[in-house]
Amino acid sequence: METNLSSIARYETSYGYHRVLDIPWDTAVQRAKEALGAEGFGVLCEIDISQKLREKLGIDFYRYLILGACNPPLALQALEEEPDLGLLLPCNVVVYEREGRVVVSAIDADKMLSIVGNPQLDAVAKQVNEKLRRVIDSI
Amino acid sequence: METNLSSIARYETSYGYHRVLDIPWDTAVQRAKEALGAEGFGVLCEIDISQKLREKLGIDFYRYLILGACNPPLALQALEEEPDLGLLLPCNVVVYEREGRVVVSAIDADKMLSIVGNPQLDAVAKQVNEKLRRVIDSI
Repeated sequence: METNLSSIARYETSYGYHRVLDIPWDTAVQRAKEALGAEGFGVLCEIDISQKLREKLGIDFYRYLILGACNPPLALQALEEEPDLGLLLPCNVVVYEREGRVVVSAIDADKMLSIVGNPQLDAVAKQVNEKLRRVIDSI
Repeated sequence: METNLSSIARYETSYGYHRVLDIPWDTAVQRAKEALGAEGFGVLCEIDISQKLREKLGIDFYRYLILGACNPPLALQALEEEPDLGLLLPCNVVVYEREGRVVVSAIDADKMLSIVGNPQLDAVAKQVNEKLRRVIDSI
């Protein structure tokens, strides 16, 4: 759903944790990457959605970046438990610009992994969520 | 859960659609990419999980590749409906090698997007699933 961003500082959706910041775009992206690194996440892929949409569809889209983040020990634990889990990796942090503000969001790993229905993943999902929440809070 | 791969040709999990093939690794990867292209998906990122785990943790892991696939018109529709949806993009196809066979899998987009709780995404999710199923079936 659309969220009115003008006055809020953070919000939660059923699938993510979000902050709305008044900082420059480049600062947000740099801080997101540094914060991920500090929590043991590597950025395995970086997808510039606005560039892709311009390239493929010729449209102007607001700045929108996906950072695919992976904490190797936790990813290994999850894959050993559930070999097909690569379908849900990496865990995304996204940065986008709306209404002159910058939104930074992290996936709710616990909610995302709930579709797998394997309780052995609960502990990993909780650890990932604690880390990702600290990442977003520190940007 | 672990799946005994020795005699099965395809299986479904709560979150994906999977085939088990007796074809060489390189053939599987090439066919997956071609099949994605034929259904209008670009591969926005390619993550070699085994290489990452070797690099970061020094362990030997079986060959495991994540292809992050995106169909631009459908991604645009989804993002217009739900700006935070980048948290669940791109849609993954994974290729991995187990017990001398190759498993190719696609995410169940309908199941994955169900965590968003936005019925306006149902039609997009169904289209993505039909396409991804054709991709896997044609490998």
